[in-house]
Amino acid sequence: MTYSQTIAIDAMGGDFGPDVTVAGAAQALADIPGTKFLFFGDEAKIAPVLNRYPALKAVSGIVHTDKKISSTDKPSTAIRNSKDSSMRLAIEAVKDGKADSVVSAGNTGALMALSKMILKTLPGIERPAIASIMPTMGRPTVMLDLGANLECDANVLVQFAVLGTVYARVVMNIDNPTVGLLNVGTEDMKGHEEVRTAAAILSNVKLPGTYHGFIEGNDITKGTVNVVVTDGFTGNVALKTAEGVGKLASSFLKDAFKSSPLALLGYILSSGAMKKLKGKLDPAKYNGGMFLGLDGVAVKSHGGSNIEGTANAIRVAANLVHNGFNKRVAAEMAGVMGQAGFSKPSEAAQA
Amino acid sequence: MTYSQTIAIDAMGGDFGPDVTVAGAAQALADIPGTKFLFFGDEAKIAPVLNRYPALKAVSGIVHTDKKISSTDKPSTAIRNSKDSSMRLAIEAVKDGKADSVVSAGNTGALMALSKMILKTLPGIERPAIASIMPTMGRPTVMLDLGANLECDANVLVQFAVLGTVYARVVMNIDNPTVGLLNVGTEDMKGHEEVRTAAAILSNVKLPGTYHGFIEGNDITKGTVNVVVTDGFTGNVALKTAEGVGKLASSFLKDAFKSSPLALLGYILSSGAMKKLKGKLDPAKYNGGMFLGLDGVAVKSHGGSNIEGTANAIRVAANLVHNGFNKRVAAEMAGVMGQAGFSKPSEAAQA
Repeated sequence: MTYSQTIAIDAMGGDFGPDVTVAGAAQALADIPGTKFLFFGDEAKIAPVLNRYPALKAVSGIVHTDKKISSTDKPSTAIRNSKDSSMRLAIEAVKDGKADSVVSAGNTGALMALSKMILKTLPGIERPAIASIMPTMGRPTVMLDLGANLECDANVLVQFAVLGTVYARVVMNIDNPTVGLLNVGTEDMKGHEEVRTAAAILSNVKLPGTYHGFIEGNDITKGTVNVVVTDGFTGNVALKTAEGVGKLASSFLKDAFKSSPLALLGYILSSGAMKKLKGKLDPAKYNGGMFLGLDGVAVKSHGGSNIEGTANAIRVAANLVHNGFNKRVAAEMAGVMGQAGFSKPSEAAQA
Repeated sequence: MTYSQTIAIDAMGGDFGPDVTVAGAAQALADIPGTKFLFFGDEAKIAPVLNRYPALKAVSGIVHTDKKISSTDKPSTAIRNSKDSSMRLAIEAVKDGKADSVVSAGNTGALMALSKMILKTLPGIERPAIASIMPTMGRPTVMLDLGANLECDANVLVQFAVLGTVYARVVMNIDNPTVGLLNVGTEDMKGHEEVRTAAAILSNVKLPGTYHGFIEGNDITKGTVNVVVTDGFTGNVALKTAEGVGKLASSFLKDAFKSSPLALLGYILSSGAMKKLKGKLDPAKYNGGMFLGLDGVAVKSHGGSNIEGTANAIRVAANLVHNGFNKRVAAEMAGVMGQAGFSKPSEAAQA
């Protein structure tokens, strides 16, 4: 299959700039043949790296700008000073039809705010969500929102359920994805009003998947559902708590191996397996916070991403476009809005 | 030191009843000499187990009842049918001054609702919180609320900060505990209104510790602060997510060891260290969800707790009483309420 599409890359985003963003694109290209690239940023820094990768160079263009958004700026400051920045130009390329998607490892808040402002949301979607893939005991789960919307009413949670199930279908190839609402218990009367109302709507509307019901925090990694829906405050805390526990477990493991010469010998013998374990939990594998719900595709790569992580974020963007994610979401939302359970279709329409 | 106090035990609570609740008390007794016990429940089932532990039997009484609250009942149903149940009688013993604390492995919702109804809250505390101890890279952290209050306004979050810092001081012996508010970022403008208002108050009032500022999910296990304060919805999801990731890591680790004969040999050599690691992450060690803020001490033991877990919950209750936790909270809250930053002292007073 050929990926006939163009990806706009904010080449200056992230901690390492073109050294990683360009190299990441070179690595991704092998898996997404036919893709073209537009790199936005300082040509004097991008061109030398691009010269190292002839296959990539052959399908790439550079749009020069010497402006970039700082990763430490508040979103409001970043937006005010965003004119002609590499990030903004990359997003505008999507708006203008010069690219199909944008990938940036820059300031998350600025990327979300600018993408929302410039690209707007899909019909039926009030707010875009940040989604990511979580490792589980079974197959990976897609979870959203991870911090774009701190407070979400029931309708927004329902829209997230549609975004997540369409993602599971078209990108993860899950036939009939299950979706769960994150809560403090699984019984009907548990939780605050928003999740209870969202649950009532989800039990009624026809989703592109199956509504499973409430799930609890431990269900995320159990792999109880294919799609975990929550508000951005809870999702952000859960994601970062999970990252913290992963690090704690690996630190405890290191201590255990160091605790005796016998244990150390054991470690040496099992080091191959430990490397595989590390790979299984490697953040780079799950890199790419996707902004779902925008009228355009935007993928955030971690600021500290390596080449592998960047390549993964680019593959994610390419597959969202290739699989027609946005078209499917718009079609499904049109169906959901026509159904009785969805209580405020007029407010749900794009402002 | 002598623990001159009496603990009321809901002997019928939990999955195993007296076999575990009585044996747990016997194990705890060695560490809390001088403590007396009152067991509430079916005498025909309690007495034979008690006979196995003469030292415990010598300091124990049994209050017979054949009623118990089912662990699967909704709190509302449980309360309606709670009269003369082992759980309710144990709580009433605290109210009536016959015991200093109550420990139960029964229905959490019912235990919280009945404790609140019967014991009421301490002066200055509007709502009790569920607190627990979390393992971290450094010393363990106390985290609250873990599910008693799904939505918390700023004043309630401030009260939780006082409860947590007093706990860290008098039970964990931390001289000047630091307290952090769980949020989606550490900058001042991050988060929803409740956490931002709570942060403003905490920056002003004199706490029995130091207000650190906002923290993120990964700070919990990093050990950034001694006390983590959050609303019950977020805290419950974070706690259960952490438990889930711990299980996932251990499952991945098992798979890694099984992946080759060499790795398996490595496992056998390091099995002593792995056992220690397991001990470090053993939930029994951290068992005992404390209900802080009640006018009386109530500790919830996990329903599936073993003898070790039950003994730990009993030790926690004994130390809360022994160290004068409640008196100190009341004194500190009187100070906080007199300070300018705490905006609604009248509403904060106990109803």
